[in-house]
Amino acid sequence: MASLFTKIIQREIPAHIIAEDDQFLAFLDVFPLRKGHTLVIPKKEVDNYFDLTDEDLSDLMVFAKKVSKKIAANFPCKKVGVAVVGLEVPHAHVHLIAINSVSDMDFKQEKLQLSSEELAEIARILRD
Amino acid sequence: MASLFTKIIQREIPAHIIAEDDQFLAFLDVFPLRKGHTLVIPKKEVDNYFDLTDEDLSDLMVFAKKVSKKIAANFPCKKVGVAVVGLEVPHAHVHLIAINSVSDMDFKQEKLQLSSEELAEIARILRD
Repeated sequence: MASLFTKIIQREIPAHIIAEDDQFLAFLDVFPLRKGHTLVIPKKEVDNYFDLTDEDLSDLMVFAKKVSKKIAANFPCKKVGVAVVGLEVPHAHVHLIAINSVSDMDFKQEKLQLSSEELAEIARILRD
Repeated sequence: MASLFTKIIQREIPAHIIAEDDQFLAFLDVFPLRKGHTLVIPKKEVDNYFDLTDEDLSDLMVFAKKVSKKIAANFPCKKVGVAVVGLEVPHAHVHLIAINSVSDMDFKQEKLQLSSEELAEIARILRD
């Protein structure tokens, strides 16, 4: 069965998409730790991030870099943190999170409650 | 002034080194979240991970992939998690952590207290 993320790629499930090319897709995490919290995924459905080919790993990170610059430009932060956890959706994904303290990358913290309108506005800002 | 990590690269400060090539170094975090917690760094001293060139970002992740395979083979886990935080040492570094739950990647948790001998043994295992 197609992963949740493959369904997003195939537009079967809606998402707030930030950037896309032939190989990768970036969209907002609907359970964000911080405003602008974005997921970057390969379109190829591979569970384990480190099972991606060397080339795909490389291209994915270069794609993520471009997205990180937009996040940093729009959500003032000390760094754009990167996390690959992968214990829930079995489709490799990279979290990009605007952080000012290590707590901002704590995945156990309560998620932000953002409305669909707020997420749409954040996505619009990051797409521009 | 050279970063703490540059001093490790230059062997001015000791570390439990796992892997090294012309561009990158992998060594054990002395404040590990989990056994086998490793840092991968570029030898080039750049503060912000996403300020690395596309080529360096790519090569760093391919190098990290090789290290991740050794961690996964020796420290049973669901995934080898990846984190780039970068709020302490101003020298880009990638954390590789054997995780079984999201709590294992919580940087605020109490660190493991491992003796130098234990760290040396883990490094020996990961180097082999």
